[in-house]
Amino acid sequence: MSAPPLPRTSAEPLVPVLAIVGVGLIGGSFAAAVRQSGLVTRIVGAGRQGGTLARAQALGLIDEIVSLQQAAQTADLILIAAPVGATTEILATLQPSLRPETIVTDAGSTKADVVTAARQVLGDQVGQFIPGHPIAGAEATGPEAADAQLFQGRSVVLTPLAENSNASKALLTRLWEACGARVVCMEPDTHDTVLASVSHVPHLLSSIYMWQVATAQDSDLRMALAGTGFRDFTRISAGSAEVWRDIFLSNRPAVLAELQEVKAALARAEQALIDGDGAALEDFLERAALARRLWGSRSGLA
Amino acid sequence: MSAPPLPRTSAEPLVPVLAIVGVGLIGGSFAAAVRQSGLVTRIVGAGRQGGTLARAQALGLIDEIVSLQQAAQTADLILIAAPVGATTEILATLQPSLRPETIVTDAGSTKADVVTAARQVLGDQVGQFIPGHPIAGAEATGPEAADAQLFQGRSVVLTPLAENSNASKALLTRLWEACGARVVCMEPDTHDTVLASVSHVPHLLSSIYMWQVATAQDSDLRMALAGTGFRDFTRISAGSAEVWRDIFLSNRPAVLAELQEVKAALARAEQALIDGDGAALEDFLERAALARRLWGSRSGLA
Repeated sequence: MSAPPLPRTSAEPLVPVLAIVGVGLIGGSFAAAVRQSGLVTRIVGAGRQGGTLARAQALGLIDEIVSLQQAAQTADLILIAAPVGATTEILATLQPSLRPETIVTDAGSTKADVVTAARQVLGDQVGQFIPGHPIAGAEATGPEAADAQLFQGRSVVLTPLAENSNASKALLTRLWEACGARVVCMEPDTHDTVLASVSHVPHLLSSIYMWQVATAQDSDLRMALAGTGFRDFTRISAGSAEVWRDIFLSNRPAVLAELQEVKAALARAEQALIDGDGAALEDFLERAALARRLWGSRSGLA
Repeated sequence: MSAPPLPRTSAEPLVPVLAIVGVGLIGGSFAAAVRQSGLVTRIVGAGRQGGTLARAQALGLIDEIVSLQQAAQTADLILIAAPVGATTEILATLQPSLRPETIVTDAGSTKADVVTAARQVLGDQVGQFIPGHPIAGAEATGPEAADAQLFQGRSVVLTPLAENSNASKALLTRLWEACGARVVCMEPDTHDTVLASVSHVPHLLSSIYMWQVATAQDSDLRMALAGTGFRDFTRISAGSAEVWRDIFLSNRPAVLAELQEVKAALARAEQALIDGDGAALEDFLERAALARRLWGSRSGLA
């Protein structure tokens, strides 16, 4: 997204009041990162969980705890960083108090359903809502896990609406870039298909696998002999069950479609194993290994 | 395994000559670790790949490159750290020159097939062979990846034969403990079932998944939006295709059996997703997350 001219000095805050709804890992990390940037003057936090908000305030991530109504009345920018299943209700609570100049965005892991919900709930005001998704996370949850560096070098996907103003898109892009992220724009459906592949299906497989090992009769022995491969493969399964339940439900068609592709690949590999076909096994293992090594060297994440 | 009295001073080497067949990540790390322990005087290396052996020698992991025959004639202990598919041929080449007092062990990732091969090839000498498997590894391969700390705090499984002498088992245990490992003894079939669960099936799933993403039409876009979850889930797929082909073929029945269990769990989760059953999804996600967090805190590997 090419940004129109914006004030460039950190002495001139872009966002006098930022409200974050849900000050956990993502919301808290955004708060910490934009505070460092000097582009935001005041950060307020809202959400269901009073204990989380109190800890976020004690950690200095937010300056004040407010209600959703207060957030809608006072904030220049509102980031919704709650489980995606809560997005509709949060937007509906914000809407009656929302000032026309306030920009609302989100950090939800799915986008098509969020866009549908925003159109239904915000109606004529939907142009104020810019759907977003920072591709960053960790197995840790809560404000204690917040990290101003979480978005450094990471991608943030925006799926802007035709109704969004260029100025609001430029401002949001500038904020994410100030967090160290690169902003990528695409259609909501494209986002959801790609994320089903590279995020949701791996989480499902990792969790299913972890569940199967943990419920096996000899799980203690299994766990005792599990090594670093097991550690890496299952790390994502430790993530928030509530967050991931919402992601799977929100992106159900794309996740189910991608799962069919993975199951078809699994069936091919399984048949090669049943046949004792070492050449076929080695061929797919080698292609996977080469692709992973290449991705590792290019992504900067290896 | 409780060890009978053994010389306890590092000034009195337990193993005058150690031979390592295959001086890659595992063989090289064992060489580096036992050299630090002072329990071994001289380390020689053998194997198919002259280039690998030359690099291992240049790195100081081994003192000399020898043939398998020379290793059998001169070594007090021989560690076979080659892909498991090569074990039979290596044992067959060692056998005619093997001195009766030499102990042979291996680091292969499967054990039942190795035991069968050892009985066939070594015959009356099979008591000299103690099957083993250090549960350690990394996605890196080759002698450059060797690390004297690789086995620190890790488990080494031995599946001793009735024919093994107590003295030879005690010596091998002492060496692995000197590498920082804890030695666990079990039946070969138990080892293979447990490892199919906690090592082989995850590697298969990770590789199949990586292969499927890499061969998708829009793989570039997918890879560009892949994050840390993808990184962790796919890390093991970068491992050696040859090593893992041999593991899958060697442990085929156990891998296929475990795969059925995982597929059954996947079918249940998929049905919950099809049904939009959020409670069922959250239940299995929560159980997986709790089990993973518990394992992480107990394993020392989190």
